[in-house]
Amino acid sequence: MALQLDIPAQISPQIPEIQTLSLSDYGKRLPGSPVREILSVSQQPGMISFAGGLPDAVVMPELPQLSSQELASVVQYGTSEGERLLKQQLVSWLSGEGLACEEGQILITSGSQQGLDLAARLLVDPGSEVIVEDPSYLAMLQILNGLGAELLPFTLSGHGNDLDALEQLLQTRQPRMLYLIPTFQNPTGYCYSEQERIDIAQLVDRYGVVLVEDDPYRALNYDGVFTRPICHYVKQSPWIYLGSFSKMLWPGLRTGFMVAHPELYPYLYRAKQATDLHTNRLGQLLIARFLQQGTLPTHIEQLQKHYRSKRDNMHRLLVDYLPKGVSWQSPAGGMFFWLTLEADCQRLLQQGIEAGVVVLPGSSFTIAADGNRCLRLSFSQISLPEMEEGIKRLVMLLS
Amino acid sequence: MALQLDIPAQISPQIPEIQTLSLSDYGKRLPGSPVREILSVSQQPGMISFAGGLPDAVVMPELPQLSSQELASVVQYGTSEGERLLKQQLVSWLSGEGLACEEGQILITSGSQQGLDLAARLLVDPGSEVIVEDPSYLAMLQILNGLGAELLPFTLSGHGNDLDALEQLLQTRQPRMLYLIPTFQNPTGYCYSEQERIDIAQLVDRYGVVLVEDDPYRALNYDGVFTRPICHYVKQSPWIYLGSFSKMLWPGLRTGFMVAHPELYPYLYRAKQATDLHTNRLGQLLIARFLQQGTLPTHIEQLQKHYRSKRDNMHRLLVDYLPKGVSWQSPAGGMFFWLTLEADCQRLLQQGIEAGVVVLPGSSFTIAADGNRCLRLSFSQISLPEMEEGIKRLVMLLS
Repeated sequence: MALQLDIPAQISPQIPEIQTLSLSDYGKRLPGSPVREILSVSQQPGMISFAGGLPDAVVMPELPQLSSQELASVVQYGTSEGERLLKQQLVSWLSGEGLACEEGQILITSGSQQGLDLAARLLVDPGSEVIVEDPSYLAMLQILNGLGAELLPFTLSGHGNDLDALEQLLQTRQPRMLYLIPTFQNPTGYCYSEQERIDIAQLVDRYGVVLVEDDPYRALNYDGVFTRPICHYVKQSPWIYLGSFSKMLWPGLRTGFMVAHPELYPYLYRAKQATDLHTNRLGQLLIARFLQQGTLPTHIEQLQKHYRSKRDNMHRLLVDYLPKGVSWQSPAGGMFFWLTLEADCQRLLQQGIEAGVVVLPGSSFTIAADGNRCLRLSFSQISLPEMEEGIKRLVMLLS
Repeated sequence: MALQLDIPAQISPQIPEIQTLSLSDYGKRLPGSPVREILSVSQQPGMISFAGGLPDAVVMPELPQLSSQELASVVQYGTSEGERLLKQQLVSWLSGEGLACEEGQILITSGSQQGLDLAARLLVDPGSEVIVEDPSYLAMLQILNGLGAELLPFTLSGHGNDLDALEQLLQTRQPRMLYLIPTFQNPTGYCYSEQERIDIAQLVDRYGVVLVEDDPYRALNYDGVFTRPICHYVKQSPWIYLGSFSKMLWPGLRTGFMVAHPELYPYLYRAKQATDLHTNRLGQLLIARFLQQGTLPTHIEQLQKHYRSKRDNMHRLLVDYLPKGVSWQSPAGGMFFWLTLEADCQRLLQQGIEAGVVVLPGSSFTIAADGNRCLRLSFSQISLPEMEEGIKRLVMLLS
């Protein structure tokens, strides 16, 4: 089981026992999200946080100006699949990213988090087997645990993955879903190679598993590495590709998207309908207008420059300050460093808060792998002076 | 079973049989929503629609102007419970509506549809019994059917409800939830009396069932009838109250809210987290700003005047044109007339579309009750000249 994080009581107060009502199995199983609960602690004055995966507001562009006519065009109820204007822009952008698709395959969601929830609800029953990377995205583990999935961990090595182990799982088990974050993975930062992508697509087709490819960090590519979506290479199996504007533009607008194999699309559409009718239209229009301006490539270059410099700085600070025996790989993109220490560091969240630095122990993200000696450090939102001070505070706790 | 509507093939194309994938039980059970699928037909040129429950865009106020500083304040990720500013405004507004609550009980949702989905997921397992009004809100029936609930119908008479029948259900079954739309009910327009509200609250407390009170139409009160929420009268049982800005302000922003008993709140909060992290912040800010202006009471008066006139006009047209034997009650609020005909009118959707008028047969909304002779007509969005022409077209089909 994941999510065994030792959260201090002041962060996650115990939920009282329900005395008078019967919750559903989902309600009983659903764990909280330590990351979101830690966010409020991170915002205390003087606290330096490496915890959240928040983009840096400094590099968010201004929201496009909309005329009153444009504003008036989005106040009425809209369609469940999303705004046509945005879908058209997405077809074009995705094509440039190597994923050809049609408007009719795109469903606009309330952030890609909603896409994960819809995909999981449509594919997972209690006891269903789901292959997930180990470690993996905490909030997807939360969703899958809530649904009662049996998680089959596929261990990420960070130096090329053991696809024989993946095939072994596909061969010997009946997974309903293969959930991967192949591009600047959360939490490890790992980016799958071209060959790994091709090989995995072949396995997906051979064993007929549904691939759910979660791809929120694609724009944050600092070293120009290969990132073509695995879904592009899948020939037969149904697949779902999840994208987001939260790391490129404005997460507060909660606008993400799914691209789905035509066989799956009608079910996702229905579930979206039943879940919240449709995604907020103003957010969709603002993003469509931004994409129409044609400045996204320039904006992404600026993002890359901004975060690359932070990544480099973080790496240098880790080299300079960390004691011997701590290992990591500098990520080619995304928002996270994944550190492996020599000793158990489960207590570092609590100790760090007392020392004014917030880090996330790896056990929040692991299933079978040993996360007790790992830490995830986000470098995306923190300023450079804070970064150095934060690393110093962390090192004090390690020595 | 509900949702046996005879939808013409051009509206709801058959979803192909899934050949290669295993859907979850939820995915297999989840029905489509005929209303939303009919929306596109309704928008064909020359078509007059009494189908959708859409507010009239003519009476939506302009969106408040926001400074660039204000816009910049909502582009980052926000909190799962929602914007403090909006919650503060809501506490004050709800107190005036007779529901005293604290900020900590309010969860901002992506429309009240999301609130319904969250509430149902947290309370309903496959086979769980749920008491619903018969007829009831189609999209909640869709959610409950998707979850595999056993629906226990509580028949609405339109002339005061049979609370003995309700008590009988509470006494002899183990319902997890009592789902009611007590104020200008969808589809019947019925508004529960003060005494009914008090009596139901007592039943809820006596039998310990969770009350889910769905209240999107409260502002559309044309005759000044009593509307204090039933949740106000509940003393012990856990309850969830669902509100929406979609009928008062701008549905396209997808901003609704739940107020929950403190015992239930932490679970709703977790489910919201896992479902989409948080509701879009720009919509929340726009609504909070509008509420801060203090013009909501004036705006609601204008809404009431506008829709009251439509309601009166519709009633007069029905009196003037409909053949003998059709019965209805003019609703004191909301958006719908519920007609009972002498003969089966299941074919009227198909026939109406051919004749250029869209109406919803009652069987979309009923569980055990006979909806085959009923029609729901919405008067909220249609213009007065269209209303007369539409009724004429409908009458042609009835004679």
